Amino acid sequence: MDAKIILTIGRQFGSGGREIGKKLAKSLGIAYYDKELLAEAAKESGLCEDVFAKADERTSHGLAYAFNMGFAYMGMLTPYNDVLSNDTLFRYQSDAIRKIAEKGSCVLVGRCADYILRDDPGLMSFFIHNRPDIRVQRIISDLGITVEEAKEKMAKIDKSRAAYYNYYTNKTWGMSSTYDLSIDASVLGIDGTVDFMKTFVERKFK
Amino acid sequence: MDAKIILTIGRQFGSGGREIGKKLAKSLGIAYYDKELLAEAAKESGLCEDVFAKADERTSHGLAYAFNMGFAYMGMLTPYNDVLSNDTLFRYQSDAIRKIAEKGSCVLVGRCADYILRDDPGLMSFFIHNRPDIRVQRIISDLGITVEEAKEKMAKIDKSRAAYYNYYTNKTWGMSSTYDLSIDASVLGIDGTVDFMKTFVERKFK
Repeated sequence: MDAKIILTIGRQFGSGGREIGKKLAKSLGIAYYDKELLAEAAKESGLCEDVFAKADERTSHGLAYAFNMGFAYMGMLTPYNDVLSNDTLFRYQSDAIRKIAEKGSCVLVGRCADYILRDDPGLMSFFIHNRPDIRVQRIISDLGITVEEAKEKMAKIDKSRAAYYNYYTNKTWGMSSTYDLSIDASVLGIDGTVDFMKTFVERKFK
Repeated sequence: MDAKIILTIGRQFGSGGREIGKKLAKSLGIAYYDKELLAEAAKESGLCEDVFAKADERTSHGLAYAFNMGFAYMGMLTPYNDVLSNDTLFRYQSDAIRKIAEKGSCVLVGRCADYILRDDPGLMSFFIHNRPDIRVQRIISDLGITVEEAKEKMAKIDKSRAAYYNYYTNKTWGMSSTYDLSIDASVLGIDGTVDFMKTFVERKFK
């Protein structure tokens, strides 16, 4: 494939989406970005990486909290004085994502990259989900926590991701119509899902 | 493939999901059911087909209306005296769907078939969506109505389908995690999408 391709991956926590993204990038021989995006953003803006990492978490928690409390309207978010600065940080991160996408083909996991790059003709957007029992097992094996803790973390992090995505875009996180392709990774397994996504990309750009 | 496969397709109105379902069934050499389900249900129950067709529409409209008014709770639906009889009709239809699935491999479009057959080991569930401009064009070309009418119909029918599905299942219509695979049919086109879905089925059952 000669055309530049930008593959974005949204994913449920514990679904294996990050592993799939890495393997897909490797299989296609293109760049992969995840937390690296933050590092890139930090370098571009002159701020240290740590500030970005912390801000990113605060945004998610602050928003999730606000949404949980039912303060879903923009006007009611102002008491959270994190929001303005988080918007600025989101802007820095968006600039970094755009610069990365300009460089060449890549896989980008999370961070609303599908929305930020929505006008790129090479964009294909994916959403990875998985069976709840498999997700719980992945989380336990990754983090060494109990079943109950894993379930709680799974629900909380997905809620944060949805709140973050829905706040910064005009689409709905996890809704089929938001993405080109959404897959339950349990059907073909991690490697089978990677191959299948690759087939999708190849058939589009053939 | 020797195993029995049951492919269910949920779809946005105007997405081409029905055409895709028919072509997929033909391509795999298996049975296809859509409105035929109603005829089957009617035959089984001894009621005439026409009664089912009307009841099906009323269910959707009644529910959509109830949901629109914010009466999303079961208890608040009782003023609509259609509901009890519609539940009975849903039960007849579910029985018909189960009988059809027992007979052998098939494609089933709509009617909560994915939920009704959720315990079938051969089940794979799909959701077809499409770009809004393409959907509007399909609706205009199918029904010979204006752009405005097509847009209104698109929104109304999707709302009905969501209300119907969400009322009779414990899942959310159009949410990625509800289905094994969700695809935007504009990426590969109708025939390309059929081939790609076939690939998914073959890779699972290989």
